Amino acid sequence: MQQAEFCPIVDLTRCLTDLLFDAQQLPAEGKVADYIPALSEVSPTRLGIAVATLDGKVCAAGDSQMPFSIQSLSKTFALTMAMQLQGDELWQRVRMEPSGQPFNSIVQLEWEQGIPRNPVINAGAIVVADVLASHYSASKNTFLMFIRRLAQCQQIYIDPKVYASEQQHGSRNAALAYLMKSFGNIQSEVPQVLEQYFHQCSVEMSCEQLARSWLYLANRGVDPVSNEQICSRKDAHRINAILSTSGMYDQSGEFAFTVGLPAKSGVGGGIVAVVPNYGVIAAWSPRLNKFGNSNLAMYLIRRLAEQLGLSVY
Amino acid sequence: MQQAEFCPIVDLTRCLTDLLFDAQQLPAEGKVADYIPALSEVSPTRLGIAVATLDGKVCAAGDSQMPFSIQSLSKTFALTMAMQLQGDELWQRVRMEPSGQPFNSIVQLEWEQGIPRNPVINAGAIVVADVLASHYSASKNTFLMFIRRLAQCQQIYIDPKVYASEQQHGSRNAALAYLMKSFGNIQSEVPQVLEQYFHQCSVEMSCEQLARSWLYLANRGVDPVSNEQICSRKDAHRINAILSTSGMYDQSGEFAFTVGLPAKSGVGGGIVAVVPNYGVIAAWSPRLNKFGNSNLAMYLIRRLAEQLGLSVY
Amino acid sequence: MQQAEFCPIVDLTRCLTDLLFDAQQLPAEGKVADYIPALSEVSPTRLGIAVATLDGKVCAAGDSQMPFSIQSLSKTFALTMAMQLQGDELWQRVRMEPSGQPFNSIVQLEWEQGIPRNPVINAGAIVVADVLASHYSASKNTFLMFIRRLAQCQQIYIDPKVYASEQQHGSRNAALAYLMKSFGNIQSEVPQVLEQYFHQCSVEMSCEQLARSWLYLANRGVDPVSNEQICSRKDAHRINAILSTSGMYDQSGEFAFTVGLPAKSGVGGGIVAVVPNYGVIAAWSPRLNKFGNSNLAMYLIRRLAEQLGLSVY
Amino acid sequence: MQQAEFCPIVDLTRCLTDLLFDAQQLPAEGKVADYIPALSEVSPTRLGIAVATLDGKVCAAGDSQMPFSIQSLSKTFALTMAMQLQGDELWQRVRMEPSGQPFNSIVQLEWEQGIPRNPVINAGAIVVADVLASHYSASKNTFLMFIRRLAQCQQIYIDPKVYASEQQHGSRNAALAYLMKSFGNIQSEVPQVLEQYFHQCSVEMSCEQLARSWLYLANRGVDPVSNEQICSRKDAHRINAILSTSGMYDQSGEFAFTVGLPAKSGVGGGIVAVVPNYGVIAAWSPRLNKFGNSNLAMYLIRRLAEQLGLSVY
Repeated sequence: MQQAEFCPIVDLTRCLTDLLFDAQQLPAEGKVADYIPALSEVSPTRLGIAVATLDGKVCAAGDSQMPFSIQSLSKTFALTMAMQLQGDELWQRVRMEPSGQPFNSIVQLEWEQGIPRNPVINAGAIVVADVLASHYSASKNTFLMFIRRLAQCQQIYIDPKVYASEQQHGSRNAALAYLMKSFGNIQSEVPQVLEQYFHQCSVEMSCEQLARSWLYLANRGVDPVSNEQICSRKDAHRINAILSTSGMYDQSGEFAFTVGLPAKSGVGGGIVAVVPNYGVIAAWSPRLNKFGNSNLAMYLIRRLAEQLGLSVY
Repeated sequence: MQQAEFCPIVDLTRCLTDLLFDAQQLPAEGKVADYIPALSEVSPTRLGIAVATLDGKVCAAGDSQMPFSIQSLSKTFALTMAMQLQGDELWQRVRMEPSGQPFNSIVQLEWEQGIPRNPVINAGAIVVADVLASHYSASKNTFLMFIRRLAQCQQIYIDPKVYASEQQHGSRNAALAYLMKSFGNIQSEVPQVLEQYFHQCSVEMSCEQLARSWLYLANRGVDPVSNEQICSRKDAHRINAILSTSGMYDQSGEFAFTVGLPAKSGVGGGIVAVVPNYGVIAAWSPRLNKFGNSNLAMYLIRRLAEQLGLSVY
Repeated sequence: MQQAEFCPIVDLTRCLTDLLFDAQQLPAEGKVADYIPALSEVSPTRLGIAVATLDGKVCAAGDSQMPFSIQSLSKTFALTMAMQLQGDELWQRVRMEPSGQPFNSIVQLEWEQGIPRNPVINAGAIVVADVLASHYSASKNTFLMFIRRLAQCQQIYIDPKVYASEQQHGSRNAALAYLMKSFGNIQSEVPQVLEQYFHQCSVEMSCEQLARSWLYLANRGVDPVSNEQICSRKDAHRINAILSTSGMYDQSGEFAFTVGLPAKSGVGGGIVAVVPNYGVIAAWSPRLNKFGNSNLAMYLIRRLAEQLGLSVY
Repeated sequence: MQQAEFCPIVDLTRCLTDLLFDAQQLPAEGKVADYIPALSEVSPTRLGIAVATLDGKVCAAGDSQMPFSIQSLSKTFALTMAMQLQGDELWQRVRMEPSGQPFNSIVQLEWEQGIPRNPVINAGAIVVADVLASHYSASKNTFLMFIRRLAQCQQIYIDPKVYASEQQHGSRNAALAYLMKSFGNIQSEVPQVLEQYFHQCSVEMSCEQLARSWLYLANRGVDPVSNEQICSRKDAHRINAILSTSGMYDQSGEFAFTVGLPAKSGVGGGIVAVVPNYGVIAAWSPRLNKFGNSNLAMYLIRRLAEQLGLSVY
């Protein structure tokens, strides 16, 4: 970590630009998410990266200011909110163990009597959405305001086409939600919970906004710029721990193995990695590998982590 | 991590003694492993802890010099050896993902066509044992010599009663091995592989020996005392990453969540945790919780990590 | 079967009365279904049996004319209708294999990509309900008319309390339906399909009506009284085959083993068994065993089958 | 069944010859079992059928006198023996439910704590082999003598090449056996149980011998020629019930659906079907479909059952 701490901004920007160039030379592999039609319309050649450091500075390269569908990256924001609302009771309703299953598996949920393995697989994130939907009368708006505050930017919106598409192709998530309801682990009505959940997934943000807004996770719960306490130090550690074991779908172990940073991936092609005590890396490229993780975003983050010696292990 | 680095030996020893005292006040919960009779004969009140730091010093308290059955802690040693022998080919035969299943589950092995989820669940460790058994003509002796070299101590032995007991009650491990052989993922004959595996599990070591012998994992692969390169820096990171996501059975996520250190647990009641760039903690108490992890060893390590601020997240 | 064919009505009635007496001496075991509140209100001591023979006569004893909730017995009627509507295409959407799983398991459905094992487990019956709902503009009414025609009785109705209760506690069935929709195996909207399905389950019939209305299955598809061809000879055989391997939940094998007749069970406490070329037995008692089958209805049918030598094997 | 009972021998023989001719016109589909090399050496064009009736006569066509590897057909003989030895206690160690899983699945065995679903899947047959191995000092010889007695023929032998091949490729069966032993459901030593099991599978018989030797199952437990009581009437019913729900691997439901007879299939290409109160059909052709059932043997039995109206349903 020593090297990273002393890496000057000018060098970091050059480093990102070089990595981007390298990434662009790689053969185009993987394919853009198409499980909902609205996601498949993104240009597959988009590529961006941003690094926000604890001093509030942001270095970036490529399409780092272009908004894209954050999808599962939203699970981290929602989890942070739900942890504040429910405290330790939340962990009666969702575990904190890696899943060893595809992100939308229903099998393990059945085995474990409606208690999802962790809050960043779909089933667990639906429980989290239920916490928000059950608590706030205007939960969707509250969620968006929370993100805007973290990103210190009002220009963050829902993509209505993605939202409609999620609703229309949401049968599997509905199955997960109804199965949990049958076990008594969903309190609001399922359609309302799914609305909340799909709303969260449909938010659009850029790499720069994402890197900026996750800084509290690299700084023990405190936003280092506003000095606002977003969550407790303990909860920041906990979220990082969950991301470390479970944030990259069924490639979480390999990501820990090769990169060694808490990170979350979304099928929109974004990956955000937390470097404790240093900052946040956000990368984006729409082509996904078979696990649902962006090929080039993984490449950029892995290379950067190697060059700067960022692994926590 | 800052605090830890400057904690003087005298204070650390006092700290360990105080934690031990606290632990002894707790109500006696959990029970000594009895899946093999030889393990159940240990006194349940044994309790010890040792911390080895990169400067080669060892602080300790309680039964820190008493040998106990290392059981699954041996998986880390064997994995280190197998990684040297097979290089990246090893990862064709075993994955590096968390398992989300009990440590001896056969279900996931069937689903994934005989490829274990990771090398620290039983099935994966049996593949690792096969690597050793297939490579060395005297694999059992080579394994013991490797441990003695790491611990810089020749007085490390097999417990023959435990070894005999493992053999006699090894039907489930035999089932795992034969199932993998049916998928072509075991090269030696199964009885020979199981001999190697049970031999590894039957080694006895003390907390001080364990803490001392794992230092290379806290120091990028280099034994900080002998300056010997035990494994590559990359492999040390990888082993720590695997321990972080999978080292504590089906409580690995919770351990990351509450402690935040790469660690491995054994049903003999030992837990060893790696603190990168600082040292190694080894604790021992025979009573296990329902996940197979020692209650008091977890308690000691969690408290120490909190006091010294050791979480990697 | 010889004995059965020559058993005179007067003797059969006496035989049923005697069996009922024996059943009433047995200790009260099992409990009334309570997964939906409306079902739990039935008196647990109700007990009835009816036998309809191919000559159109009905012998009965006990509460044989009291309507009760037919629940899963409705699956046989709906399957008969769907087989006429879809022909062999139906078997692309649902298999005909025993399930080896609880009646409402979601695990196997996930494994087999949304294709239920057979049409008499819940998932398969929901596909069947989808066939009806997608085909008829007034599918619920058409279903009721079909039953009334078979029973030759207009006084057959839905129990609105059971129907409302099913809707309210239908989360698991909703999960099954949405999971199948996510695999493309449900054509109508899920709420509409569930309405059809719950409507079917909420029909009330008596033992005498049930025995009368299933006669076509004992007579190669032809109602022996009206001489109407209800389904083809082949389809009657097929339905009997499915009931033989899968009609009694996870006790189907044991029922074949001890009784040896095609039969269907419902959690309302009814069981209907087909005796090919002879007639139909319908028995009812609300207390269920752990598999969801009525204890005393099974007892009555087993004893009768033994006395008359009815096993097909 | 009426037609069948009056079908004269001369017509039945002609009927079999015609069916054989039809089968030979069909395109060659499926492939010969190759999971053990010794089985793969059989000529794929072999085709034979035999029907034994309760009067002791045998009609046949094609390769009906050529011995082939009976493989899983042996499970019926072994089950008959074990039922005599253990009585109803046997059903504490193996259930009688259809499995809904491939014939050698280990998953369900794990779920159900080492209790196989039924005695004709591999796991269940290994329990049955354990009963024989634990009871007889010369269990393998006793088994062979039992078959010879039933077939009234001393010229029935083990194929030593198949036996050696089974042993050599028996890892999956060893996994099943050790898993059950870990649950306490195997009494003898596993290698001894597997010897017994592989011995049973390696017996060679012809269609005529098979049809003759199963007659007791079509005649309530009594061999109709020798008048010897082979098993109780109840046990004959039970075996037929098990074969009806589980005898044809994961095509058992479809076989009940299309043929409607208790039957057992073996990967050597043989299928034997029981026609209660009439006789036994045995057919053989080595090419298997994806479920492990002989394509042409199924074809022959289905056509014959249709022509003679043999379905029990």
